[in-house]
Amino acid sequence: MRDVVVAGVGMTAFGKQPDSSLSGLATEAVDSALADAGFHGEDMDGLGMIYYANVLSGLLQGQESVRGQHALSRTAVAGVPLINVENACASGSTALHQAWLSVASGQVDAALAVGVEKLHTDDKAQALAALTSVLDQERLPEVLAELGAAGGGSVFMDFYARAATRYMEQTGATRDDFARVAVKNSEHGSRNPKAQYSRKLTVDEVLAARPVSGPLTVPMCAPMSDGAAAVLVAAPELARRWGADGVRLRAVVVGAGRRGALGELLPAAALSAFEQAGIGPEDIDVVECHDAAAPAELIVLEELGLCAPGEAVAALRDGATHIGGELPVNPSGGLQSRGHPLGATGLAQVVELADQLRGRAGARQVGEPQAGLAENAGGYLGPDAAAATVTILSR
Amino acid sequence: MRDVVVAGVGMTAFGKQPDSSLSGLATEAVDSALADAGFHGEDMDGLGMIYYANVLSGLLQGQESVRGQHALSRTAVAGVPLINVENACASGSTALHQAWLSVASGQVDAALAVGVEKLHTDDKAQALAALTSVLDQERLPEVLAELGAAGGGSVFMDFYARAATRYMEQTGATRDDFARVAVKNSEHGSRNPKAQYSRKLTVDEVLAARPVSGPLTVPMCAPMSDGAAAVLVAAPELARRWGADGVRLRAVVVGAGRRGALGELLPAAALSAFEQAGIGPEDIDVVECHDAAAPAELIVLEELGLCAPGEAVAALRDGATHIGGELPVNPSGGLQSRGHPLGATGLAQVVELADQLRGRAGARQVGEPQAGLAENAGGYLGPDAAAATVTILSR
Repeated sequence: MRDVVVAGVGMTAFGKQPDSSLSGLATEAVDSALADAGFHGEDMDGLGMIYYANVLSGLLQGQESVRGQHALSRTAVAGVPLINVENACASGSTALHQAWLSVASGQVDAALAVGVEKLHTDDKAQALAALTSVLDQERLPEVLAELGAAGGGSVFMDFYARAATRYMEQTGATRDDFARVAVKNSEHGSRNPKAQYSRKLTVDEVLAARPVSGPLTVPMCAPMSDGAAAVLVAAPELARRWGADGVRLRAVVVGAGRRGALGELLPAAALSAFEQAGIGPEDIDVVECHDAAAPAELIVLEELGLCAPGEAVAALRDGATHIGGELPVNPSGGLQSRGHPLGATGLAQVVELADQLRGRAGARQVGEPQAGLAENAGGYLGPDAAAATVTILSR
Repeated sequence: MRDVVVAGVGMTAFGKQPDSSLSGLATEAVDSALADAGFHGEDMDGLGMIYYANVLSGLLQGQESVRGQHALSRTAVAGVPLINVENACASGSTALHQAWLSVASGQVDAALAVGVEKLHTDDKAQALAALTSVLDQERLPEVLAELGAAGGGSVFMDFYARAATRYMEQTGATRDDFARVAVKNSEHGSRNPKAQYSRKLTVDEVLAARPVSGPLTVPMCAPMSDGAAAVLVAAPELARRWGADGVRLRAVVVGAGRRGALGELLPAAALSAFEQAGIGPEDIDVVECHDAAAPAELIVLEELGLCAPGEAVAALRDGATHIGGELPVNPSGGLQSRGHPLGATGLAQVVELADQLRGRAGARQVGEPQAGLAENAGGYLGPDAAAATVTILSR
């Protein structure tokens, strides 16, 4: 397999965008990624495949099929072969994996990964029902019982609440720690003009907010977001010809969950990604991870091998995971503050890492990082996620 | 890229299967493909990726996301990294393309493509509405007007009716010819124990049946079907180790439609597939094509370069496309008689070709074919399909 670079990245602002359309969001992100790469869409120079990620437009916008072809039919890249991919909240990074494979294999010289989602609806119950459709419908009562689903809220927050409770028992982490994650990420998000939330929270505020499930309160949970993100990958010589300021895409690994297995998914995917990248956890300077709920950030850092078991809490308390700390985590604000438009999230993480590695992250720049890691997870197979990806980028 | 073989194929019977589940159908097809390859699922010998194709389980079964992970969670292949792909009625062959790429690139030594669909519901209106969700929802009124959609039926039959009318004007084909396609495929289907329909039709019967749209009557149109199909691809040396009776997967090309373009999609995909395969139209001995409506079979044969423009009708009338003819087309019965469970269709075509090439097609065996071609199309981008694939297999 040959080397692949991220040649250009782009994203829309994330948030509540009732007047936007799926195609409008997709177009903005794609145009921005192409421009970033110095790529001239008109001549389709080497761009041979597009992978499009979306999770819920079937239930929320009635757009069930060939979603990407429709969303991109009025852009410069219309007519490039396109495959729609889906892996729940890990769909965006799954699209990136396929784009990487297309270029790494030599099949095409450039490929585009695009993720788009519109979650906001006037009918919150509809959106929550749509989220439940991610669970195994053939055994739904069993799965809801397994989750201890409180009902009325997002079943995924029941999932994270259970994981949080286990983590508290195992490590001595407290609700205050989960609030600290939310506070840190709100501070990071306040530096990100594309983030859904810009207000800095306090620990007291987070703890006093409306409870969601178990130890979780509203600001500890990712919001419902609209948005799109796009990543253009290419063979290094092609990216150079465009004049792109590229970063190396060292690994994108899609890991698989297995029913009944807990805590196997991420460690295996991370191991495989580090092996593919030829670097280790100690080489990672900045992380974007799937903090769909605050405790997940701590759990994930340990499962990825970036913190020793039980030590993510100390890293958080010491400020190591803040911008300016030893290992900044979610400088973008993470899912909690940047927002979480499902299919776009995994690609937005890569947008952030590419900007950090190129020193373009403005007020949230974390020094001069040489390598970054993104983790993106999706679905529920009980008691863990159904899929997860680990992506490693470097200068 | 290295050589890839189809090491094993499997499918369920297609038809109305109200008591089946998505996971039950998927399991049957997968088990059968693994057994055909002599592959022992228990040791996951080289099987590194699964691509899962489904189009409408979101709207019809409420299963919107990580569909493959759920459908396969109780099979021998649970826990293998899985990516859900979608390209409307071309989803199955799109999954095959990705499986091919995974093995051809050397990323993994074996990959599985699985397609599953349950279209039958007690509420026919619900199923037809679900099919309409395949159109561009952001410009639906415009698209429906463009299709001259009669309403009440499948919008796709309005699409095929328009194409049929154009074809009649261009070539002098008649409604009788379209009926002849349906009659031929019903005769082929009567030889296929897995086909949805086993009754042989007559031209008079087809012409006298209930009109659907334009020149089309019910037996000229693919039915609503439930079913699953699976194709296991592998590196040749691995397939040999399993003792598989494999066939070579010479090309799988995903073509892209472009709004406003007519008749470009398939010729370009076919050209690219023949180039990749290193053989030409004259080398093809058997064809499975996307006869979602009878006239499409004629149009497609010409667009693929398998018949000269305007000559598919003569080939049909002469019996060349019947089993026993010079170029048998849809020996399985095609979408019209075998059935059309959307996500499974493209893989069922490959199941048929693999069986034909290995001399295992029983009463519908077409001699000793050396090479076969499958064509699968999906979606509508106006005035053509949104995606299409061309697959070439050989001994």
